[in-house]
Amino acid sequence: MIILIQCKDQVGLVASISGILVQQQLNIVSMNEHVDKAENRFYMRLEVEQATDVAALESRIKSILPEDAAISINPKPQKKIVVLVTKEYHCLADILIRNFFGTLGATVQCVIGSYDNLQNICERFDVPFFPVLYDSSLVKEVLEQKITNLIKPFEPDYVVLAKFMRILSPGFVSQFPQKLINIHHSFLPAFIGANPYRQAFERGVKLIGATAHFVTNELDEGPIIAQQIIPVNHSLSASDMMKAGQEIETSVLAKALRLVFDDRVFVYQNKTVVFE
Amino acid sequence: MIILIQCKDQVGLVASISGILVQQQLNIVSMNEHVDKAENRFYMRLEVEQATDVAALESRIKSILPEDAAISINPKPQKKIVVLVTKEYHCLADILIRNFFGTLGATVQCVIGSYDNLQNICERFDVPFFPVLYDSSLVKEVLEQKITNLIKPFEPDYVVLAKFMRILSPGFVSQFPQKLINIHHSFLPAFIGANPYRQAFERGVKLIGATAHFVTNELDEGPIIAQQIIPVNHSLSASDMMKAGQEIETSVLAKALRLVFDDRVFVYQNKTVVFE
Amino acid sequence: MIILIQCKDQVGLVASISGILVQQQLNIVSMNEHVDKAENRFYMRLEVEQATDVAALESRIKSILPEDAAISINPKPQKKIVVLVTKEYHCLADILIRNFFGTLGATVQCVIGSYDNLQNICERFDVPFFPVLYDSSLVKEVLEQKITNLIKPFEPDYVVLAKFMRILSPGFVSQFPQKLINIHHSFLPAFIGANPYRQAFERGVKLIGATAHFVTNELDEGPIIAQQIIPVNHSLSASDMMKAGQEIETSVLAKALRLVFDDRVFVYQNKTVVFE
Amino acid sequence: MIILIQCKDQVGLVASISGILVQQQLNIVSMNEHVDKAENRFYMRLEVEQATDVAALESRIKSILPEDAAISINPKPQKKIVVLVTKEYHCLADILIRNFFGTLGATVQCVIGSYDNLQNICERFDVPFFPVLYDSSLVKEVLEQKITNLIKPFEPDYVVLAKFMRILSPGFVSQFPQKLINIHHSFLPAFIGANPYRQAFERGVKLIGATAHFVTNELDEGPIIAQQIIPVNHSLSASDMMKAGQEIETSVLAKALRLVFDDRVFVYQNKTVVFE
Repeated sequence: MIILIQCKDQVGLVASISGILVQQQLNIVSMNEHVDKAENRFYMRLEVEQATDVAALESRIKSILPEDAAISINPKPQKKIVVLVTKEYHCLADILIRNFFGTLGATVQCVIGSYDNLQNICERFDVPFFPVLYDSSLVKEVLEQKITNLIKPFEPDYVVLAKFMRILSPGFVSQFPQKLINIHHSFLPAFIGANPYRQAFERGVKLIGATAHFVTNELDEGPIIAQQIIPVNHSLSASDMMKAGQEIETSVLAKALRLVFDDRVFVYQNKTVVFE
Repeated sequence: MIILIQCKDQVGLVASISGILVQQQLNIVSMNEHVDKAENRFYMRLEVEQATDVAALESRIKSILPEDAAISINPKPQKKIVVLVTKEYHCLADILIRNFFGTLGATVQCVIGSYDNLQNICERFDVPFFPVLYDSSLVKEVLEQKITNLIKPFEPDYVVLAKFMRILSPGFVSQFPQKLINIHHSFLPAFIGANPYRQAFERGVKLIGATAHFVTNELDEGPIIAQQIIPVNHSLSASDMMKAGQEIETSVLAKALRLVFDDRVFVYQNKTVVFE
Repeated sequence: MIILIQCKDQVGLVASISGILVQQQLNIVSMNEHVDKAENRFYMRLEVEQATDVAALESRIKSILPEDAAISINPKPQKKIVVLVTKEYHCLADILIRNFFGTLGATVQCVIGSYDNLQNICERFDVPFFPVLYDSSLVKEVLEQKITNLIKPFEPDYVVLAKFMRILSPGFVSQFPQKLINIHHSFLPAFIGANPYRQAFERGVKLIGATAHFVTNELDEGPIIAQQIIPVNHSLSASDMMKAGQEIETSVLAKALRLVFDDRVFVYQNKTVVFE
Repeated sequence: MIILIQCKDQVGLVASISGILVQQQLNIVSMNEHVDKAENRFYMRLEVEQATDVAALESRIKSILPEDAAISINPKPQKKIVVLVTKEYHCLADILIRNFFGTLGATVQCVIGSYDNLQNICERFDVPFFPVLYDSSLVKEVLEQKITNLIKPFEPDYVVLAKFMRILSPGFVSQFPQKLINIHHSFLPAFIGANPYRQAFERGVKLIGATAHFVTNELDEGPIIAQQIIPVNHSLSASDMMKAGQEIETSVLAKALRLVFDDRVFVYQNKTVVFE
């Protein structure tokens, strides 16, 4: 059983919480805690044996936490997700494979695509695919409303932007707070915005990377979940860099999703605490 | 103030220990704990505010721990070390620099060398250097006794083998249990023994590495503290690999020493628990 | 157009070969060359503009090379492969995805499995799957003969062991010289043989890795194509290490296949020259 | 003997150059070449046996190169450098150690410091140290003139900014074209400017890095020579990140200097070609 706690820090939190667990004779399998001094925030993730009366335990723990505390006991182990894509297959295919073999930690409810080229792969895995094709005669808000209408009935825990290449409006983003996960094709905060591999090539960098992050209204500025890089050199063209980057994008997004679906990521303001 | 605890695992250890700290109104600055299920061992490292009566605190904590518990409160922040070297300078120089600038977390009491070529660099840093030159007419035990006699008066917390290229006898090793730290010039357990770079070259590996470990009586088999690797390819000769390896050896040994001197490494049987 | 040359080294090879290309007015797009001093071998990979008369060019180049030279001009860009699997899906699924989207650099002719659990995923991608189920009443040679009989009609350029967990007999291996590519679930030469993650866990290593290599008759001893590692620590169980290892296995095998199918890997005796 | 060539690309350069070497019976030990298609530039680095008449060889090669060609035969193996520092010791100490043991590939002529705290370490290695202390009553140009006056008599091949924390004026930079090498304490182009570790901490990045680059008049925008990163997480304070960053800064600068002093780095406009 997982227990997640985030609250204002105060003396004695660890003792109080672990004391309650001992009273209930719940053995701690693993414990992570972090205090952010700068923000005076307390974060804890516990794996304990299954309690018989979860509601009682939750109320007991809540009673000793500060008022602002967010506590989650027994979060569902299998999340529900919706995936948004444009044209590139690499991140989506990796998610579909893990979904199919039951190792994603989530179930893909549907995929929504700006193009229809990824419909075939979704169908091969019996995952519903909905095209919301780009249409220059429509304003962004209308397209986003279509997407929202498709997403909402599935009540997903997370919406994964698996190389979804359109910038989402604040109105859209605000409907999915801390639920939108994006893979950005660069090592943020370098190369914010479009064509990062072209930018990286022109700058002559010796490393390229990718960043998985929650989406907020600031472009490419949400809380970072995971980042990785690979070395490059002068012999790679911008297009070679893009290909190399796709491998790292797939890998970083997979890692970020594993961490999030495993309830190992806390968000506070613009940063994450990740208990790996 | 650092508190280190290692003992048999049992229910309620976290609650009991943190409860005592709350009673004493000692705020926890950071806490790491690990339970090794396979061995049923409990490990904890705490940073707490300074207690006024350390002896009382220690006795209070001991009273609630299992009988076998090893507890250390307020370990000295600055360790004393002796360094053993053969001919290569890179690891020694890095240690001398950090020692000189006060960032080693330890003070080098003296350096003992199988050759005298590193005497000059030691003298430049006012660190005593004692040559115990190899002498084929002497049996190993006599040379080791000389080394032991030089080490003992300094009462070092750790003896660092900074590219000391002779195999030490069980008799020597047994005098410094969990105190002998070695840098092995390969990614153990690959390439145990002599000439690992030659072995790596001949095997055509694509990565080479280095391993810092505590020394036990099994050759290159003690508990591993830290490991790192770098990519190599066909264009490197065995000698190029050795040069590249020296960089990684320096880096891995520095990291291992930092972790050990920072009281972040627990040893149990042939493994370590490292709270980075 | 790709030109691959491997031969005994001699003075003037680069000048002679590039001189012929200039005569034919074939511009060099990229060139890699390596001389292995220890073995006195010359390796060259050229990308040049397409020649009109390839046979004439080949015979012209051959005329200036040493007798032992192996030269390949215009190797087919799309290789044919057969994949052997046991139970694990991760490497196979990655290959099937790239095959499906046309980015593998090869086409999968069929998959042969020791179990039937991977039949479903193959069928979803319209790739023939042939089970050769383990049968304790049959000697290894009989099972291998079945596998050989299945492979031969496809005349594959390479046979990929994508987590095929049985040791192949010398008789089998000898039928596919420099054509058998294996992913070994460890950072060879550490942890040769079975259960490397269990071995790694018990040794308490701080890094685990994977190795893609050509198969020869020495167990896990063939020429290494690619290797990668990831950091691990005490908090991972042997089973966690296995899961983490699967990610790196997939990644290393994908990289090795890309290099091989891109005609970037030369083999000589027990080593490779890889022009990345 | 090293031969370096950079020029406009044209058909037949490899054949012509290698043909000349064959005529002179000079065996090629190793060869790197690169054509930058985007810029139509040709780069070549050759290691060949020592020629008896270098001037004749140079003039012979020049005769077949385009007019704009830069060619360097037999560049001096041991460069002369001047090092500029502020207060931090880590990069300087690493340079002094390699200088002392003769493995730097250069000799340190002198060190110029904005503070006098690094005088002691320089004196221990018999390296002249000149303080040019910051003085708020002086304009930057006056301080820079003092530094220039100190540097010029040494006629250094390179001036190394080993954590020199003041921004240099265009007037100063223009006196040392392609000779000024800086270590920037971040993974450029992220976190340009001051306090990058504070910026990284506030952004919550999961990797931090360092960049060694030639200095041009655009702040932190010159051609990149080498970059490396290390993983970080929420448990590091901005100050911890700075400490971790110092290790990587030392390592990246060492690598960049090795590459430059080994004549493996070509510069063209704002990018480098590095033959590792």
